[in-house]
Order: sequence, then structure tokens, then C-alpha cells
Amino acid sequence: MPWLDVPALVDHHCHSVVAAELADDVLAGLLTESDRPPAPGTSPFDSALGLAVRRWCPPALGLPAHAPAADYLARRRELGAAEATRRLLAAAALDTCLVDTGLTAAGGRPLLPLTELAEAAGAVVREVVRLETVAEAVTATAGDWPYAVGEALAEAATGAVAVKSVLAYRHGLAVPAERPALSAVVAAAGARQRAGHGRLTDPVLLHHLLWTAVDVCAGLGLPLQLHTGFGDPDLTLHLADPSLLSGFVRAAEPSGVPLVLLHGYPYHRQAAWLAQAFPTVYTDLGLTAAYTGPRVSAVLGEMLELAPFGKLLFSTDAYGLPELYLVGAAQFRHGLGGLLADWQADGACSAADAQRLARWVAAENARRLYAL
Amino acid sequence: MPWLDVPALVDHHCHSVVAAELADDVLAGLLTESDRPPAPGTSPFDSALGLAVRRWCPPALGLPAHAPAADYLARRRELGAAEATRRLLAAAALDTCLVDTGLTAAGGRPLLPLTELAEAAGAVVREVVRLETVAEAVTATAGDWPYAVGEALAEAATGAVAVKSVLAYRHGLAVPAERPALSAVVAAAGARQRAGHGRLTDPVLLHHLLWTAVDVCAGLGLPLQLHTGFGDPDLTLHLADPSLLSGFVRAAEPSGVPLVLLHGYPYHRQAAWLAQAFPTVYTDLGLTAAYTGPRVSAVLGEMLELAPFGKLLFSTDAYGLPELYLVGAAQFRHGLGGLLADWQADGACSAADAQRLARWVAAENARRLYAL
Amino acid sequence: MPWLDVPALVDHHCHSVVAAELADDVLAGLLTESDRPPAPGTSPFDSALGLAVRRWCPPALGLPAHAPAADYLARRRELGAAEATRRLLAAAALDTCLVDTGLTAAGGRPLLPLTELAEAAGAVVREVVRLETVAEAVTATAGDWPYAVGEALAEAATGAVAVKSVLAYRHGLAVPAERPALSAVVAAAGARQRAGHGRLTDPVLLHHLLWTAVDVCAGLGLPLQLHTGFGDPDLTLHLADPSLLSGFVRAAEPSGVPLVLLHGYPYHRQAAWLAQAFPTVYTDLGLTAAYTGPRVSAVLGEMLELAPFGKLLFSTDAYGLPELYLVGAAQFRHGLGGLLADWQADGACSAADAQRLARWVAAENARRLYAL
Repeated sequence: MPWLDVPALVDHHCHSVVAAELADDVLAGLLTESDRPPAPGTSPFDSALGLAVRRWCPPALGLPAHAPAADYLARRRELGAAEATRRLLAAAALDTCLVDTGLTAAGGRPLLPLTELAEAAGAVVREVVRLETVAEAVTATAGDWPYAVGEALAEAATGAVAVKSVLAYRHGLAVPAERPALSAVVAAAGARQRAGHGRLTDPVLLHHLLWTAVDVCAGLGLPLQLHTGFGDPDLTLHLADPSLLSGFVRAAEPSGVPLVLLHGYPYHRQAAWLAQAFPTVYTDLGLTAAYTGPRVSAVLGEMLELAPFGKLLFSTDAYGLPELYLVGAAQFRHGLGGLLADWQADGACSAADAQRLARWVAAENARRLYAL
Repeated sequence: MPWLDVPALVDHHCHSVVAAELADDVLAGLLTESDRPPAPGTSPFDSALGLAVRRWCPPALGLPAHAPAADYLARRRELGAAEATRRLLAAAALDTCLVDTGLTAAGGRPLLPLTELAEAAGAVVREVVRLETVAEAVTATAGDWPYAVGEALAEAATGAVAVKSVLAYRHGLAVPAERPALSAVVAAAGARQRAGHGRLTDPVLLHHLLWTAVDVCAGLGLPLQLHTGFGDPDLTLHLADPSLLSGFVRAAEPSGVPLVLLHGYPYHRQAAWLAQAFPTVYTDLGLTAAYTGPRVSAVLGEMLELAPFGKLLFSTDAYGLPELYLVGAAQFRHGLGGLLADWQADGACSAADAQRLARWVAAENARRLYAL
Repeated sequence: MPWLDVPALVDHHCHSVVAAELADDVLAGLLTESDRPPAPGTSPFDSALGLAVRRWCPPALGLPAHAPAADYLARRRELGAAEATRRLLAAAALDTCLVDTGLTAAGGRPLLPLTELAEAAGAVVREVVRLETVAEAVTATAGDWPYAVGEALAEAATGAVAVKSVLAYRHGLAVPAERPALSAVVAAAGARQRAGHGRLTDPVLLHHLLWTAVDVCAGLGLPLQLHTGFGDPDLTLHLADPSLLSGFVRAAEPSGVPLVLLHGYPYHRQAAWLAQAFPTVYTDLGLTAAYTGPRVSAVLGEMLELAPFGKLLFSTDAYGLPELYLVGAAQFRHGLGGLLADWQADGACSAADAQRLARWVAAENARRLYAL
């Protein structure tokens, strides 16, 4: 079986996990981007991701690969969630995890604090600060809000390795290229204040936040991660096409802040072109590797058509389930391993070229980008 | 040769066929989405679909696979169109066909009535009612029109298994999420009445029809099929991206009406995401399997990256030519058979997983969805 | 190694090359669509295109395939740029090149005049006139401008084999279907005159130019090439989707002028559908074959899903570096050769079908389209 032989994996985009017991349907509900109950007669296990979970996870709990979902869930309960979590994270064999701390629960249960995640995974854990989460906690008056969010972000991001934006979920990526006018931001902050400081969805405020993030990242020397491509049903897919960010990318280019386009799928070829065209743009494997299951090599191949080899980064985007760490890592090792074996068999590159590409995507690009 | 071993095929979206003799160029004209004469020096047989026709159909008429188009057409005439139709439909070996009756002719010749199609194909045939065709026959006054189309659709759909919308051809899929105002519908119906009740293309009327279909389908417990993706030159491709339906999908979700996104290509990955994100959304293989010829496994693989295995449905979208039934069925059996053989060889799933997925897509998903 | 055995290659879209010595970083800068310096720690050689250059070019200079970039650059300097250029172009073995003369320099050095390119390549060279370049040289008064650009284009295109538009770079492809009003064109020409006749970016003028090109091409019996899909950072990717041209394609159809959609990637499936739906539309391999390196067969497969086999044309889109001629030709021979070998092994077509498709795409479609 093709398997990527690299000394270390740096997971540059992930979330923490639940180590408590989860009901079967709650656990299954973390194997899909949907937050709704499954359609009649269907289960999230009956999917490309479900196949990948049943391929890679049962062996970590002492069952054969492809064990039925029911057997796997029974074995997981038998071992206990804490032990299963420990085994799954250990099998993922990650060296370093950059964890987005904007989400704090999954399936109604709290996520492990970063120190406990680090211990369970045997990995170095660093924080990625979620822009909108920080901003939603700011209760300054309208006139102060534009500055207060910058101060709050700078404070939150100090010691972190990156800032992450979920603009794609809140408004979509079709934003004007240039900064919004301060007066418009203050007016929108006033409207939000009167509405009770809820979830941030106003386009002007979100747009201001994006530029606030550019300023803070420029000051601290951090990259800015942006969710692009598929996600949960909050998102409208065609509005998450990273090409919609082109104007912003050009306007932010003088800042020198690296922009890391997360996921991208099914617009990963667009993300790859942006990474080739603009020195500041990087691109990500993300949850695509896990979610596309048997198709991981083909999708990785599509990403590598235009993405510079020094600008594609491995991540699991694991969230909630420790299974997703193992699946993300194993899919990457198997998928990129298989792709590069095919390339060599076809005469497209040498073994040394393949090894270098593998090490870069697995860890070195992230180390260089995040100064780890 | 990989071949899907499933007990039955349910073709959930197709049209009837011409059993009369057709001139060679008329027959060839039904092997392309174009309704124009071919460019100088080209023939519709010189395409991925043409290769698929010449692969699967000659053996059904006693010729070797890949026989030249001229030999195939000569043999077809020699046997007679009726006998050729019988042989081709029999070779398709379909168990059940859900037939869109909105089109009644192809190549200038009438399509077989459903009873004759059923007899020739040896298949159970059920009707799918085409929304816009029903509505175009309604000649009520403007004030009555909004209700009259509902009554006409309810009557037409009683006894049918689904309603189908061709909004993608008439306006594209970028519709507002919510129902149009009644006053706007009445005004638009008045304008249409004054213009002589022709082809329905007014965006407000089309939008009203979509919601009429939701109401009628909810009442009768039927799914609503929507054309998405490629089709004939009437259609503007990027306006047929199913992601444009996202707002409508969310607004229609409380009705519980299943929305079946037909075809989707080249936006089938977008359709698959919608099927994963929203319990009410299903997705379809459609004419893509036939039209992409040698590439069918790759395209099926792309669909299965995100589509829940319980929500992808086989169809031929055959229209006019009995060849398209055989080609659709054979392409599916060969293409999915090959894909699943590759998955197993790669260790991505067990044989039992592959068999279950195959049975679901081939027939069981359709049986569950349409309550067959 | 699969290799397309065709008697000749006609490169229907390319540019001339620099035969002078280039500094290593300047040469590397011609291996990416970016016009910026590479990101820290990256080089354009570390890309799919870079792998393809290192696969095909070192043997033409007496080194083994996959020689390191530094070794290749050293050997190139040792031979001298003129000799290296001669060897690389000879190895490309092109029969005919249709050269876009709109660009006259690369990496700060002048491109070879067409006669010298023809001699170095041992190929017949014909000219493709760039629409916007011709128009930018017209300094007529505002009232005369609409006619003067037509006259200038007709003069420039006499003796050429096609006209090429780079509208995608200047405004994007979202243009109104119908011709702009003359009064609007005159007003825009006036504004441009007052601004000093610089780079043409006004949407009305660009739109007028497109129709001027249709008129001139109709008069001279020439095809009109249009850049679509990826390119350098001037371009906004989603605005280069060829589907945006649908209205224009329909409006221009009565003129009979063939519209050749160059490149298309990552919207090549959209371009292929347009080529199937509209007799006047043709589609192109373009720089995609070179830029996607190890993935060329997969991308070619995607193009051939819907593109009529008589309407896809080989090109290198080589620019600046003679390496790109050899890489484009070799990638095509290897990629299409591999794809067709796979198709035959799968039983999807006969050997005769594969050979015919190969000859068509390699040369005969271009000979028919450009009346060579």
C-alpha cells in the first residue's frame, strides 16, 4: 500500500476533540458537514468519509479495517471514549497541531483544552485565533468598536501562530477590494449594538474585521487563514469560491501578510491558481482529504496542477472526533503516497523530487510559513 | 471487464423514444446537446458519447463493438427501427423507468406512448410530470392563474411519481429564496395573457411555479426534480449551477419535499455538497454517464466524493433514441463497476461495502425516494 | 512510455521566444503565471510545470531527464542560449506555429522575429493578430475611432490566420450579448483620448472591439481566438469563465465566425460544453498541458468529456522560453498518448478511433479551421 514516508506531520489547521462518551447518532453527526438529522434510510457512515473512518480507525482500536460501523461503535464504547481518543490521536502520529480555538464544543460536549489535547496527541499544540469569535466578545460603543476589535485581536493573537477568518460562513467571499469607510463601520457597529451584540453577520463589520486582521497580522508577523470552499449548511457554496477574494488579495498584497486559503474544494483549482499568481497566497489540503475518502489521490492531484509545491499545506481540519485526526493523517499519507508513486511510475518525476515535495507539504511549508 | 452485478436498475429520469425510422443525420442529431447542424467536418458520432454508442449498441444488433457509425446505421435500417428499438431496450435490462412526459417528440417524430415504451422495454413505467408544460396549458385569467396552475399540477401529478422543473432552461437557477408576492404573480400572468400564452419564460411566473410545485409535491408526497447543469444551447451554463438554488433549498426545507438535482455536470460536486448538507436534497447521475463516455468512472468518482451513498440515483436521461437507454445502463454498469473495483483494489472499501453502494445507487435509493 | 504517433503537430496558439541569455531568476520567472518574485523559500521550478521542464528538456541538451534545475541552467549557459533554443525548438518537432504577435518581449528581452523563429523551429510560422494591441495604436479622434479600429484591424489581419482577443485580462468575459451603441463608443473613445490613449481597459471600447473583430473576421474568413481561464495576476479567474460569453456566442452565431476558446482551465469543461452546443465554438488545450505537468492526461480527459473530437485543438501557448515549445509538445504527445492507451485498454474505443482522434487534435482540426 502506498504510504508517504515523511519524518513528521504538521497539521496547520485543526480543532480540538471531545474525549467524553458520545451517543452513536451524535458521533455519526460529526461525520458530515450537515447539522441536520440524516435523510430517511441514510447514515453519515454511508459516505466517502464513512468509508475512510472504517478503513483507518478500527485497527487503532483492535478491529480489522472495514469493520461495520456498529461493531466499531461498540468497541469504542467498550474501550471508553478517553482510551479510544488516546489511541486514535496516537495513531495519527502528528508532530505539531495548529488549533483553531473559535469553537469550544462539538455534539453538545466541550472540546478538550489545548493542554489536554497536546498530552493526548503527544504533539506540540499552538493556537490559531478566530477573528469573528474575538470580535463578537467586544462590547465597545459604536465609535470605539473599530479600534476596540483591533486591540482585542492583537491581544488574543499575541502568542498565537495565526488568525483565522470565517467570513465565508457569515457573508461569503465577495467583498470589496478596499477597506470600508470608517463612518460606515461606526454606523454598522451602532446598529449591531442596538440589536444586542449577537452573531456578527453585517457585511461592513465583517469587511472591517478582515482588514483589522491584515493590520494585526502585519504587526505580529502572522499569516491570516481564510475559510474557502465547502462547509456546513450555513454557507452558500458558490459564495465561498476563493476567486471572489481576488480584489482583496491584490489590495492586501503590500502588507505582506500571507493569506492561507483553507480547503477550497470544489474550488481548489481556483485556490491553487491564486497561490501561483500571488506570492502572499498559500493553499491547504484541509478536510478535503478526509471527506473525499477513496478519491483523495485524485483531488490532491488537482490541487498540485497549479499550486506551487512550496505553498500547499497539510491539515486534517479535524473537529470533535479524534477519528478525524487519524483519518486526515492516514488519508494524506496514503493519498499523496499513491499519487507520487503514480507520478514516478509514469516518469513524471524522480524519487528525490517526490520525497522533497512530500516533506514540504507534510511539514516544512508550515514550519516556514508559521515560523515554527 | 468490470461490470456492476446488481439485481435491478431503476432509471429515475428518462424520456420516451422514437420507434420510427430516422434519417441518419436526424439520428446523429440526437447524440448531442446541440440543436444546430454540426460544424463543417464534424459529426456527433465523433465524441465521447459517440464512442459509447459504438461500444455498446452494435453488439445488440449483431455487429462487433466499435463498428463504424455507417455500418451501424445500415444494420439498424436493415433490421428496421421497431426491431432495433426492441433489441436495444431489452439489452438495457431496466426494471423500472420514471419517464418525464413533458417532451412528446424527437427529431420531428412522436415519442412512443408510455404503454408502448413499457412493452418494448419490458419495464415498469411511471410518469414524471413536467411543471412548465402543465402550466403552459393553463389559460385562466390573470387573477385566477396562480391558483389554476396549482389545480392543474395537482391533477396532472396525481398518479405520477414526481414533478420535474426545467427552470434552468427558462431563466436559470438564480431565484430569490422566498415566494414571490401574489400581486406580482398576477401582474406577470396578465402580461403573459396579453402576449398570447406562449412559452413560459417570465421569472416571476417561473418562480411562482416552483413554489406551486413544492406545495403540490408536499400535498401528494412526491419529490420535485430540478434540471441542473448542462443541457441544450437554450441554457446558459453558469446559471444552471445548482448552488444558485441554495436559498430556495433552505426556504423549501420545512416542506419536507425532496429536491432531486438532475445531472449537475460540470457542477456535480456542488450538487453532491448540497445533498450532504441538506436532508431534502438528492442528486443524480443523469446523462453525464452516457455523454462522458470513456470518462464515466472518473466523473462518478467525483460525484461520490461528497454525495451520501443513499442520495445518488442512477438514471439514463435517455431521450429519443433507444440507444441512449442501453448506453446509459451499460455506462453505469461498466463505470461504477470499474470505480468500485478500483476502490477495493486500493483497500478503500470491502466487497460488501461496494455491493451495498451499488444496489443503493442502481435501484434502492430510487425505490425509497419515489415509494416504488 | 505512451507517446502519440501522429505525422505532424500544428500549434495553433503560441508566442515567440527569447534567444538571448537570461539570468537564472528571469528564466525561472517565465515558468509561472506570476509576474511577482516567488514567495520566500519557493522557486517556479518547484511546480508541476517545473517537473515537466526537467523531464523533457534536459535530454535535448544532453543531460538525463529530471536533472536538477541548477545543472540544467548551467548546461544551458554552457551551450549558449542560441544553441539551446535551436535544440529545444527542434526537439519540439512542430510542423506549423500560429504565433500571437501581440507580445514583443519576455523577461525584458525582445522576442525573435517570426522569420527567425520559423528558421530556428524548422516550422511554418503564421501570424495571429492581437486585437487590443492593434486598437491601442489607433489615435483617431473619438468620432472616427470606432471605424478606425476596424480599418486598422482589417489591415493588420490581412495575411494573418486569426485575430485574438485578451478581453479576459482587460475586463473579464461578462459582456452584454449585443453590440454597444455607437454613441456610447464615441463617448468612451473621447474619454480615452483625453486620458492619453493608454492601455485599453474601458468596457465599452473593449466590447466594441469584440464586435469589430467579429466583423473583420467575417469579412476575411478568419476565426477569432479568445483568452479564457487562467493567466497572469492581471486576470480575475472567475471573470474568465467562458460560460460568461454565452450571450455573445449566441449573438455572434449568425456571422459564422468561429470562436476559439483558448485554455479555459479550470473552466475547460464549460468550454467543452460550449463547443458541443454551438457549431461556431472551438476549444483549445493551451498552456494547460504544460502547466499541469504530471496531470496532463487527467485534464485532457476532462476536456474530451464533452468537446467534439473535431473541435479540440492542440497548442503549446509557449511564450518567451523555447523550453515551453518542447514541453507543450511532449506533454501533449505523452498525455494524449497515455489517455488513449487507457481508453483502448478499457475497451472504450478501437485503435483506429484513437488514431483518428489523435490526428484531428494534433493537426487536422487546426488545418480545417484556419484553412492552412
